Amino acid sequence: MRGVAERISEQLDHLLPPAEGPRGRVADAMRYATLNGGKRLRPFLTVTSAGLFDVPEDRALRAGAALEMVHCYSLVHDDLPAMDDSELRRGTPTVHRRYDDATAILAGDGLLTEAFAVLGEPATHPDAGVRAELTLGLARAAGTAGMVGGQMVDISPERVDLDLNGVTELQAMKTGALIRFACRAGAILGGADDTQRAALDGYADDLGLAFQIADDLLDAESDAEALGKPAGQDAQADKATFVELLGIEGARGRARDLVESAVARLEPFGEAADTLRATARFVVERDS
Amino acid sequence: MRGVAERISEQLDHLLPPAEGPRGRVADAMRYATLNGGKRLRPFLTVTSAGLFDVPEDRALRAGAALEMVHCYSLVHDDLPAMDDSELRRGTPTVHRRYDDATAILAGDGLLTEAFAVLGEPATHPDAGVRAELTLGLARAAGTAGMVGGQMVDISPERVDLDLNGVTELQAMKTGALIRFACRAGAILGGADDTQRAALDGYADDLGLAFQIADDLLDAESDAEALGKPAGQDAQADKATFVELLGIEGARGRARDLVESAVARLEPFGEAADTLRATARFVVERDS
Repeated sequence: MRGVAERISEQLDHLLPPAEGPRGRVADAMRYATLNGGKRLRPFLTVTSAGLFDVPEDRALRAGAALEMVHCYSLVHDDLPAMDDSELRRGTPTVHRRYDDATAILAGDGLLTEAFAVLGEPATHPDAGVRAELTLGLARAAGTAGMVGGQMVDISPERVDLDLNGVTELQAMKTGALIRFACRAGAILGGADDTQRAALDGYADDLGLAFQIADDLLDAESDAEALGKPAGQDAQADKATFVELLGIEGARGRARDLVESAVARLEPFGEAADTLRATARFVVERDS
Repeated sequence: MRGVAERISEQLDHLLPPAEGPRGRVADAMRYATLNGGKRLRPFLTVTSAGLFDVPEDRALRAGAALEMVHCYSLVHDDLPAMDDSELRRGTPTVHRRYDDATAILAGDGLLTEAFAVLGEPATHPDAGVRAELTLGLARAAGTAGMVGGQMVDISPERVDLDLNGVTELQAMKTGALIRFACRAGAILGGADDTQRAALDGYADDLGLAFQIADDLLDAESDAEALGKPAGQDAQADKATFVELLGIEGARGRARDLVESAVARLEPFGEAADTLRATARFVVERDS
């Protein structure tokens, strides 16, 4: 995973505009928002899923970098004072604290837009049909039926009263849709058939939910130093979490069940999918 | 122009997500931001350019609606307190005044994202190569080399000291790139050849600059009622404008010259381009 993360950082550095000229400030902020050593889970899923179909890695890295741009844009906007008002992210000041609110808004807008440019360029795949499918899939995952809609629910007054179904649905939109598309992008690049796509979709959905439950457990149990951001934020904001709804042990059990389900979904790929299986296990065992 | 504007509003109404369910608020704000009777200049340029190549109008309307979503997203974000802090737009409260800052940020993000979904859907054009080219073109026009970069310059401390070249370059990024792409989208949908594309690019660049100069003249001369927003904003913010740099008469003359140049660029299309010629004249003669 570390190797892919490094190559994704290299790709982002290569793909993002240079921090020079009159628009240098927004490019600088886009770089600050992305080149900060995240886990790169989404690009890793894209690269590893694409690997099942022998896709040349440079194509998968481009698609993965585009997804990471979208993920990072969502963090930049979610952190804004008008939204979650977060001061720290991965142990460093958030973009609006390091620059200012206007630059953070523009850096997010820029990352979202450039992600579509990356997917649209022929270097991502010579077949325009593949590029068009990637673009459409990313737009749907990131749009009102996905990330944007999920964030709207997450900051709504109704958020505090969500039950288990509601919190699960919120997760599927806010973080699940992009994680699903991360695997789907590998399948699109690789020309996967319907069975293979369905298997990866199922894997990604289980993994995405397990990832969120693990996040809630970390938020409830860790201290700020390990997380790189203040701990216990959701409880403070009175937001219903999986931990609150299921209890610590219940949440742990549910995450473990989801990982086993995710692992089983990969059956059509045999041993070739062992890295994806290990990824699912890592997701619930990580400590940050 | 009014007919196309009405059909674009119908398209937007059809393409935007319904304002219902848990994410209803962001969909409602996206509708408020777009279904408010703008001039629809960009979609009009797309539809009229596409008409030169006998493109079925439903395709051009979809592409035009996507461009209008991107234009409206940029207005929503530019109006935010962290940016221009505008209270009125087209005579009604701006999105963050009508809703709140968080909803306005998300509505902008949603409009930008859904625009790419609209272009990516096969209904926009059956040939994926055309869809991929539209997507890439929109991303480049809206990204750091275009709109986002232009807005960064527009709110930068260096903004007040820009000379004529600087203000012209700013306009080319902030508003010119999307206007150029509005015509280019018609050419892409219509399979235009290189000569035709170059002619439309040149027309759009002249028109875009004339449009901005006319805007500066309106801002300097009109009252708030005619504009639907406070007048004299740029002078108040100490931003160098074409009017300040060229004088009222100089700016008027420059706009007129640009319109004549724009009109001449359309020579390869003969009389078929008369609507585009009339549009260029309208742009500098409008009073709001």
